[in-house]
Amino acid sequence: MDDTGHYLLQMRATPPLVHNITNFVAMNIMANVQLAAGASPAMVHAREEVAEFAALAQALTVNIGTLDPAWAEAMEMAAGVMTAAGRPWVLDPVGAGATGLRREVSARLLALRPTVIRGNASEILALAGTLGTGRGADATDSVVAAEQASRALAQQTGAVVAVSGPVDYITDGASAVRVGNGHVLMPRVTALGCALNGVIAAFLVGQPALPATVAAMAYYGLAGEWAARNAAGPGTFQAAFLDALYLMTPADLTQGARVEPA
Amino acid sequence: MDDTGHYLLQMRATPPLVHNITNFVAMNIMANVQLAAGASPAMVHAREEVAEFAALAQALTVNIGTLDPAWAEAMEMAAGVMTAAGRPWVLDPVGAGATGLRREVSARLLALRPTVIRGNASEILALAGTLGTGRGADATDSVVAAEQASRALAQQTGAVVAVSGPVDYITDGASAVRVGNGHVLMPRVTALGCALNGVIAAFLVGQPALPATVAAMAYYGLAGEWAARNAAGPGTFQAAFLDALYLMTPADLTQGARVEPA
Amino acid sequence: MDDTGHYLLQMRATPPLVHNITNFVAMNIMANVQLAAGASPAMVHAREEVAEFAALAQALTVNIGTLDPAWAEAMEMAAGVMTAAGRPWVLDPVGAGATGLRREVSARLLALRPTVIRGNASEILALAGTLGTGRGADATDSVVAAEQASRALAQQTGAVVAVSGPVDYITDGASAVRVGNGHVLMPRVTALGCALNGVIAAFLVGQPALPATVAAMAYYGLAGEWAARNAAGPGTFQAAFLDALYLMTPADLTQGARVEPA
Repeated sequence: MDDTGHYLLQMRATPPLVHNITNFVAMNIMANVQLAAGASPAMVHAREEVAEFAALAQALTVNIGTLDPAWAEAMEMAAGVMTAAGRPWVLDPVGAGATGLRREVSARLLALRPTVIRGNASEILALAGTLGTGRGADATDSVVAAEQASRALAQQTGAVVAVSGPVDYITDGASAVRVGNGHVLMPRVTALGCALNGVIAAFLVGQPALPATVAAMAYYGLAGEWAARNAAGPGTFQAAFLDALYLMTPADLTQGARVEPA
Repeated sequence: MDDTGHYLLQMRATPPLVHNITNFVAMNIMANVQLAAGASPAMVHAREEVAEFAALAQALTVNIGTLDPAWAEAMEMAAGVMTAAGRPWVLDPVGAGATGLRREVSARLLALRPTVIRGNASEILALAGTLGTGRGADATDSVVAAEQASRALAQQTGAVVAVSGPVDYITDGASAVRVGNGHVLMPRVTALGCALNGVIAAFLVGQPALPATVAAMAYYGLAGEWAARNAAGPGTFQAAFLDALYLMTPADLTQGARVEPA
Repeated sequence: MDDTGHYLLQMRATPPLVHNITNFVAMNIMANVQLAAGASPAMVHAREEVAEFAALAQALTVNIGTLDPAWAEAMEMAAGVMTAAGRPWVLDPVGAGATGLRREVSARLLALRPTVIRGNASEILALAGTLGTGRGADATDSVVAAEQASRALAQQTGAVVAVSGPVDYITDGASAVRVGNGHVLMPRVTALGCALNGVIAAFLVGQPALPATVAAMAYYGLAGEWAARNAAGPGTFQAAFLDALYLMTPADLTQGARVEPA
């Protein structure tokens, strides 16, 4: 694969319009993360316009965090547009195993063939379970415990599956990569995982899915490492994290990325 | 009562999953406040899953800030689950007296027996008024002006009633406590009052309601005092406030709490 | 016109209750901007109470960013109350040209006679186009390219039209003003344009629309200039920007405003 910095360079040179259908907690920080990285975010969800808008976007993110049935319909409409047009979209199955509604909506979205599925270990295990290949969700699941289910999920869906954690695991079902960048303060800031989807989506435009996802996750984790140097706690960390996404150059990313075959 | 730091220690040792049904302005900062304090927040509101999710949570917060009828139904469903299960929940009657919808929904929620009712003086007066025990709401009401209505409201509902202000007043209808911690920049950051509900809810898990609420409010106000030392205005204050919630130890809280019988 | 600082002084002396019906991305930062400036924000959108609440407010903002039909109805109800009562309201036609729903809703809102219409150049061009006076929207439109359409839109609607950009352009159809304050980091923070509407609305209360809008935009841009001195990137910029809105005095504004006849 190209060096990781190449993907950041390409994304910023585009820069892509990313359509996001995400939860109410994540909306503001997700838009700020995308703007800091160099992408152009838009949030549109009404069934009356969501397909029309998706047709204008280069990539889409779908996140089921504060789900309700009307939003789920909009997610399916937008995802259908992207899959039909051959454009990338990212699915974040927040709390996938927690309720019946989430299991149903997740299954319907999976059938629309996301380019990338990103979640924490418990969410990926829950999602794999809806296909009969994994276990139930458990908040204490480790990334390593989700590796087998991730590969199976990737093989069944054709998606790249990315598991966020202290060391991230990304697989297309054939090969797999680990990304060691990150910082312990990241899960202390709400919706940073959700916001990562927007960066992955932006990196995917015109690029192969596995290395673009790996590069986006290394970029994100490295920004967390930079931010921690200027943070006393999660409040100052969040501000410093946005600064780091903005300030990091492709050369910085290539130098700081900790990417290894799994 | 135990020293205030004890309640922070217990909360962090649990740590509780808190289900929040709150307004759109508050969602992000509320989740960040809970994460910084050490709790685990989740936002779920769809009527199709809200009761199922409430059954998984240790505590609930309900806030009528950006109300609409569908959300009000979800609030009632979740509150009903918590009350039936004997688990704590906190009601924040934002703008309770402003419109007919707010008066109706507040009355229905009160009937579901919240563990704690927290608001500013005008909101508590408005809420007491719907039960025929208080006066109409007035944005200029002081905490002291709401003390009598707070005691009556607590006696009628069985809830602990907490009035936020320069000096907070907390009562269970029998005894009452004042908390002197806080800083004038706190009301200059939107939804910090709403976010406090999430900290109170987390402190309530497995603890008696009056002292747990007092401890949560002292912790919150003391974090405001810490933050002011590192702030030039409300923007840097918000970041420093999250840092302070994260960095404060139980011993710091016990030492800095300004709690007195009323 | 009076010096620009006069309008800040008057606003803070009131201070106005501003009713905002805005998008999910903007809600939190918009409330924080208004609180930092010295106004009192409230977000209310349900059709069951929106007209009742609008009657309590001194000014209104309407923003179609994360539109859906139920919210559009609420916007019309609240705007109708304000126009009937002779109180000011601000329309932000976010993405006005992007979809059919946005074109329809924008046209309906225009018919309710906003006091001020504020957007970027492409949005103003799209809006003028719905009246047959301008061109289609284009993300690359410059402020200068939108000047003629702005004047025509102002003449047709009776609104002050304000175009945000590196140099802002504000016109009532007869005369026009340019405001040179601002900083390149401002568009890197999401919803800062949306949040500006809340400041304009607060400045409009009891004041003539053109100079009040000019003063609000100079105040906002100057706060951006101040913030940039204490920012390494968009994260620290956002915090410093709220601080600057809070700390700036009327005399600072009069001295720093860069306002010229167009």
